[in-house]
Amino acid sequence: MNKYKMVISYDGTDFSGWQIQPHASTIQETIQDKLSIIFQKPITIIGSGRTDAGVHAIGQVAHFWAEEVIDPRRLRHSLNGLLPPTIRILLVAPVRSSFHAQKSAYAKVYHYHICTHEVPTPFQYRTMFHPWRAIDWDVVWKAAQKFVGERDFTSFSNEPSAGAVAKNPVRHLYRIDVVEHEEGIRLELEANGFLYKMVRNIVGTLLEVGAGKRSIDEIDKIFQAKDRRKAGRAAPAKGLFLFHVFYPLEEETLAEGSL
Amino acid sequence: MNKYKMVISYDGTDFSGWQIQPHASTIQETIQDKLSIIFQKPITIIGSGRTDAGVHAIGQVAHFWAEEVIDPRRLRHSLNGLLPPTIRILLVAPVRSSFHAQKSAYAKVYHYHICTHEVPTPFQYRTMFHPWRAIDWDVVWKAAQKFVGERDFTSFSNEPSAGAVAKNPVRHLYRIDVVEHEEGIRLELEANGFLYKMVRNIVGTLLEVGAGKRSIDEIDKIFQAKDRRKAGRAAPAKGLFLFHVFYPLEEETLAEGSL
Repeated sequence: MNKYKMVISYDGTDFSGWQIQPHASTIQETIQDKLSIIFQKPITIIGSGRTDAGVHAIGQVAHFWAEEVIDPRRLRHSLNGLLPPTIRILLVAPVRSSFHAQKSAYAKVYHYHICTHEVPTPFQYRTMFHPWRAIDWDVVWKAAQKFVGERDFTSFSNEPSAGAVAKNPVRHLYRIDVVEHEEGIRLELEANGFLYKMVRNIVGTLLEVGAGKRSIDEIDKIFQAKDRRKAGRAAPAKGLFLFHVFYPLEEETLAEGSL
Repeated sequence: MNKYKMVISYDGTDFSGWQIQPHASTIQETIQDKLSIIFQKPITIIGSGRTDAGVHAIGQVAHFWAEEVIDPRRLRHSLNGLLPPTIRILLVAPVRSSFHAQKSAYAKVYHYHICTHEVPTPFQYRTMFHPWRAIDWDVVWKAAQKFVGERDFTSFSNEPSAGAVAKNPVRHLYRIDVVEHEEGIRLELEANGFLYKMVRNIVGTLLEVGAGKRSIDEIDKIFQAKDRRKAGRAAPAKGLFLFHVFYPLEEETLAEGSL
């Protein structure tokens, strides 16, 4: 058996998220359907993690097994020919059998896009959040630094707790950058992992601080409370992009001649 | 009567261009329909110029007359509420009665977007052209400078000639810039006016030169021939944006209190 990884970009607007579920159009299912047509047998793909309904990706990563040795560029070309234009396979590459899209990932980068124009253009409305309130971005940057470090992010997570085995809620957030560009603001968050809805809950809280609805000092109290209800409202899905997933070099792409 | 101008952005993908025509969805007609609902009577808008099917705009300008004195921000809000998200009114402002969106314009800027990634993402495919061939952008820049100046652009225009009163084919092209950015290349063209399909014909010819299919020296001969058939194929509509229209300061927006 041969293992391959794919790097995938998608516009999540019209999908019910990454993960397969009944009676809903998901990105995982759409890609599996097309792979199964090409290979003439059912193929399952494993993603680096789920993304919610409406969330986008520039660099989602998934792996799958195939009996045949395939030509990565030809498979990419065939897949993109079958997929809707809202999903694009950017790369197909052979990987070692030890590679696992979810378990091998050691860090992820998410971007959150905010439009600061008075009226978002048609090219911005699907992928940028447009807040009603004026935001002080210097305050947002200061508040963002309160989140950096190894912290218990329980207050910023919607992980289901009832009946579930408690998941370790500690994550190491390496950086939150506030990048100003022509169309608005991009928040860049990099961590060794993210809990469910963690990015949107952090961004939503930051925007409330930037709008003057909360003080920077409240953030420490929210962390201490370990209570999701103390944090701000989740920022809308439409502005969120899974931008990059990091893997150890030895688990990365095999050279094409090495198979 | 009171005169107003609008600045309009649209994603032209699903429209048959700006100008009203039978049995087709156009941007002019869509906006007029919504204005007529708001004013409860037929309103005609005059644009700075037509854009073809599939061509986009960031800064199209149009004017119209209204009997009432209107609140520009309220009208913008009402219009955007009625319009599809592929058309956004960025600004409504009162103007002097001498202002004319087409006749007062003294210069225009078009942008042409080219994706240089191997596979365009879902966020690029509607608004960027993705050429098959490798393009040498230094060669494109050198070739572009051959177009700058006051020239007879007959060879780069698809103006209908048969039976029509000959239109002056001389235009002054002030600049063509080749701007490299994260997602690809943006060609910026600024002139005192553009003939029909002039931007797409110039860009198409430049891409053929950049791909090594034509030499830079051919450009002078194409100009001299005054024959559309000598130039390259028009570049696809999807990459083209009407970016800005310039008006004399005295014809610009009236102060809101001055009415």
